[in-house]
Amino acid sequence: MKVTMAHGSGGESTSKLIKDVFAKYFNNEILNKLEDSAVVGGCSRLAITTDSFVVTPIEFPGGNIGRLAVCGTVNDLLMSGSKPMYITCGFILEEGLDLDVLERQVASLAECAKEAGVTIVTGDTKVIENKGAEPGLIINTSGVGFISEDAQPIGPSCLEDNDVIILSGNLGDHHAAILAKRMGIENNIKSDAAPLSEAVNNLMEQKIRVHAMRDVTRGGLGTVLNEFAESSLCDIELYEEKLPVSSEVKDFCGLLGLDPIYMGNEGKFVLSVHPDDAEQALSIIRSSKYGENAAVIGDVKKINRATDMHKVVLNTAIGGKRVIGLMYGEGLPRIC
Amino acid sequence: MKVTMAHGSGGESTSKLIKDVFAKYFNNEILNKLEDSAVVGGCSRLAITTDSFVVTPIEFPGGNIGRLAVCGTVNDLLMSGSKPMYITCGFILEEGLDLDVLERQVASLAECAKEAGVTIVTGDTKVIENKGAEPGLIINTSGVGFISEDAQPIGPSCLEDNDVIILSGNLGDHHAAILAKRMGIENNIKSDAAPLSEAVNNLMEQKIRVHAMRDVTRGGLGTVLNEFAESSLCDIELYEEKLPVSSEVKDFCGLLGLDPIYMGNEGKFVLSVHPDDAEQALSIIRSSKYGENAAVIGDVKKINRATDMHKVVLNTAIGGKRVIGLMYGEGLPRIC
Repeated sequence: MKVTMAHGSGGESTSKLIKDVFAKYFNNEILNKLEDSAVVGGCSRLAITTDSFVVTPIEFPGGNIGRLAVCGTVNDLLMSGSKPMYITCGFILEEGLDLDVLERQVASLAECAKEAGVTIVTGDTKVIENKGAEPGLIINTSGVGFISEDAQPIGPSCLEDNDVIILSGNLGDHHAAILAKRMGIENNIKSDAAPLSEAVNNLMEQKIRVHAMRDVTRGGLGTVLNEFAESSLCDIELYEEKLPVSSEVKDFCGLLGLDPIYMGNEGKFVLSVHPDDAEQALSIIRSSKYGENAAVIGDVKKINRATDMHKVVLNTAIGGKRVIGLMYGEGLPRIC
Repeated sequence: MKVTMAHGSGGESTSKLIKDVFAKYFNNEILNKLEDSAVVGGCSRLAITTDSFVVTPIEFPGGNIGRLAVCGTVNDLLMSGSKPMYITCGFILEEGLDLDVLERQVASLAECAKEAGVTIVTGDTKVIENKGAEPGLIINTSGVGFISEDAQPIGPSCLEDNDVIILSGNLGDHHAAILAKRMGIENNIKSDAAPLSEAVNNLMEQKIRVHAMRDVTRGGLGTVLNEFAESSLCDIELYEEKLPVSSEVKDFCGLLGLDPIYMGNEGKFVLSVHPDDAEQALSIIRSSKYGENAAVIGDVKKINRATDMHKVVLNTAIGGKRVIGLMYGEGLPRIC
């Protein structure tokens, strides 16, 4: 069975699609009311985010667009220090999409939402013409998280002198997996797409003094740390031999001339923490589901100089120093 | 200037697009932080909704996809009895889209959000390949509304015996405007795309006993009222001569064999109110910006019979009775 324009008309075919595919996996009390708006409990401070997923191919080693759509939005909510609570799903289907392919995405999305501890509260389905190539789909997820009253401020402008920079795991896996699949290269690299709820919720519950936190997606670690340095008027020093990168990704990057520092990930975050809490933070992340390769990768120096002089510097394995600037040129499109 | 794949890469071109087009119109304190999640004040009960807009053509008499993207989401929030507060915007642009066209959509979206009293708190931009035809865009908006502690329950299952059914204005304008534009027919019909905030906020503030409320979009009035009748186990009687339809739409429908009862609108709502409040409700709606043609169109009869026997009946202008069933076949795709 294929998706037809009628599935997006709002009529009987749409109802059938919702019943047969979406309701089957997303089943919960709030969603089952099938109202245009979900009514849910609230909180005095909210985090709100949105993300559209257009990744191609839609299925790749280690994940698919359904899993990615949860990870991206849940991780954005987590990075603000909030506890992700609700997500919405907007499906935009291309005419001719195989219903089995759609069902696999929906199943992954539901499974990942369950793991991340978020409820899918409402959704929307539209169908658009497919203008030639393999029919695909786009998913938008928006999310709402709760922020506790006593939460400390977290943000790129909150880094402090002597903060320790921790990365939650290996760099480059998602980017390399997508690229390899597109190029038809066979290897063992899998996307790292994962919800970071366990690690981050535990950091928050243990009152670790996290000053800034960011998932390392499009633009890579280099882009995130430059934004931290610029917003907090500090320098960040990194140590190349401490940067976790798998040997497969290292080889793949060597072959293609890619730098893992600028590659996108979908299940990694970098944080700047008070030095006295660094050891505990590392141990919390390492004992979480996706954090076994977490490492301290650098530290923060507050130096009084002009705004645009702050730098991210990498101490290379062979003893040199290299400035990590903003990504030069453009990243790979449609990796998320 | 045209949209390129680089605009969706998350790099410098994306930043420039955000600065030059989005920030120019969406300028507000929360959004300007450019964090992946917006942090905002909350409330103990929330309404959450999402909608993707894929309308084609993207510009049409009376509106465009930018305006529609606000109206659809704001109206969904209003229908739950909530006060719309925040919206998110996910833009999915086709490569080659003219930046002037994009800017017009963004300007309309910002203007409509201002009118509706909602803040655009966060957004996302992706670019996808254009596979041949005129490049377009898709917009997803998700929204959060606040529900007051003492709000009465509102929903399709809350209709009561002797309730009065009120429609907020003329039927069929949006659907007819889109269809006419697609067919190249020139006439004076304009889309009714409008945020219903003024009318609905006033109904709520005046504590009108609204039992159910629904914007009359895809599927039309017939579909909404059937859902009301089915959920509340009641009959609904309508009066044809009371149904507001403009003479232009009447003529257009006559020509094409369309029935305004099943046509989609984007700035109309139907409500079921306690009979003692009906007059006041009508006057509140009529004195609101888009409500001058509001009318009492029918009433509710609770009759004790089997679930699937409840009906929406139209008393025709010539004295007959016609059962208004669910829409037969499918509606026009991509009208929203």
